[in-house]
Amino acid sequence: MFRTQLIISYRGTRYVGWQRQPNGLAVQQVVEEALAKLLGTAPRLVAAGRTDAGVHALGQSVHFDHDRELPERAWVEGANRFLPDDIRILAAKGRPQEFHARYKAVSKEYRYLVSTASVIDALEYWRRVGIQADADFDAMNRAAQELVGCHDFTAFALAGGAHKSPERTVTTAAWTVDEAKAEFVIRGNGFLRGMVRSIVGTLLEVGSGSRSVDEFAALLAGRPRGDAGQTAPAKGLVLQKVEY
Amino acid sequence: MFRTQLIISYRGTRYVGWQRQPNGLAVQQVVEEALAKLLGTAPRLVAAGRTDAGVHALGQSVHFDHDRELPERAWVEGANRFLPDDIRILAAKGRPQEFHARYKAVSKEYRYLVSTASVIDALEYWRRVGIQADADFDAMNRAAQELVGCHDFTAFALAGGAHKSPERTVTTAAWTVDEAKAEFVIRGNGFLRGMVRSIVGTLLEVGSGSRSVDEFAALLAGRPRGDAGQTAPAKGLVLQKVEY
Repeated sequence: MFRTQLIISYRGTRYVGWQRQPNGLAVQQVVEEALAKLLGTAPRLVAAGRTDAGVHALGQSVHFDHDRELPERAWVEGANRFLPDDIRILAAKGRPQEFHARYKAVSKEYRYLVSTASVIDALEYWRRVGIQADADFDAMNRAAQELVGCHDFTAFALAGGAHKSPERTVTTAAWTVDEAKAEFVIRGNGFLRGMVRSIVGTLLEVGSGSRSVDEFAALLAGRPRGDAGQTAPAKGLVLQKVEY
Repeated sequence: MFRTQLIISYRGTRYVGWQRQPNGLAVQQVVEEALAKLLGTAPRLVAAGRTDAGVHALGQSVHFDHDRELPERAWVEGANRFLPDDIRILAAKGRPQEFHARYKAVSKEYRYLVSTASVIDALEYWRRVGIQADADFDAMNRAAQELVGCHDFTAFALAGGAHKSPERTVTTAAWTVDEAKAEFVIRGNGFLRGMVRSIVGTLLEVGSGSRSVDEFAALLAGRPRGDAGQTAPAKGLVLQKVEY
């Protein structure tokens, strides 16, 4: 039995998310079906994390087990031949049985793209969310700094997410601005369901002045979900990379 | 009678090009139908230039005439409400009757995006074309420099393009490289049909060593079309902007 890790990129636009669902097409299903054409039988992919409907990935990490050994390049080139343009396997790597895409991940990085332009052009519209032109990125960055460290992120967890502990450690959280384009990068040891989009939505309320930095910071003491802001739209979010 | 100029961005992926065709959906048709919902009757749009099937635009420029005056913001916001995500009007400007989107254009800029990565990720695949990892960008830039100036571009014109003169003046032509991503920018007073993609395809032959810089330069003396290289794929090309 061999274990292989794949690094997968996808545009989430037309998928119900990473994980198989009864109600639509999941990235997992499409990749499993492509690999089945190489293997004869469909493997079961285990991903570092689910991504929600519409969320993109540059570096989703998954593993699967298989009986047949193939060169690493053959997984990449073979599977990509059977995949649509909006899903691309970027790399494959043989791993020992101890490797686990989810349990062995030590950090994940997400990016969230916004624009302060009055209209977002058609080349960016599919992956960038419009926000008000006068968003206060200084305040948003002061609030983002409050995220760094180990906190109880209950206020930012989607109802229905299953987790043993609501504590997570964030190591990086910052906005960078380049003219009308801005980007939020957040890195940490793990994220609760819906946590990044809920953090972004609440930071945007800080940026519009409807919530203070202090009010934002107070959410990090385990306050209930209803206290945080809106969940930001899925199309702005990218699972950038997973580290082991 | 009022004349209005629109700046339009679009992803060309699912269109037969800018211009109305009997065999598929054109960007022109979709925009004219959206404007018809604001005006009551469909205007006829005149564009700075046709873009071929699959070619993108960040700043296509068009004009149209109408009886009903509207604030500039109303054209943008109103039409965008009736447009799909892959077509966005970025700006509208009232113009005198002497303005003409095509005849008054003094320069156009195109960009062509490539990647030397072994696999192009799913976020870029729709608009970036893969080329060999060891492409010689120095040679491609020496060849590109030969384009600058006024030349007979017959060798780079698609058969079937109608033009009075095959002479055009190119003011900028250069490749920039950022790790695996590279971009060709070309600016000039006008372009023959298929000219940019034919130039890119021929420059890529210089980059792979199958054509020398001198052989490339010799094409600029009005050599016939068959002498130039392949036409590069449409998805890498963006009409960046039009100046008046």
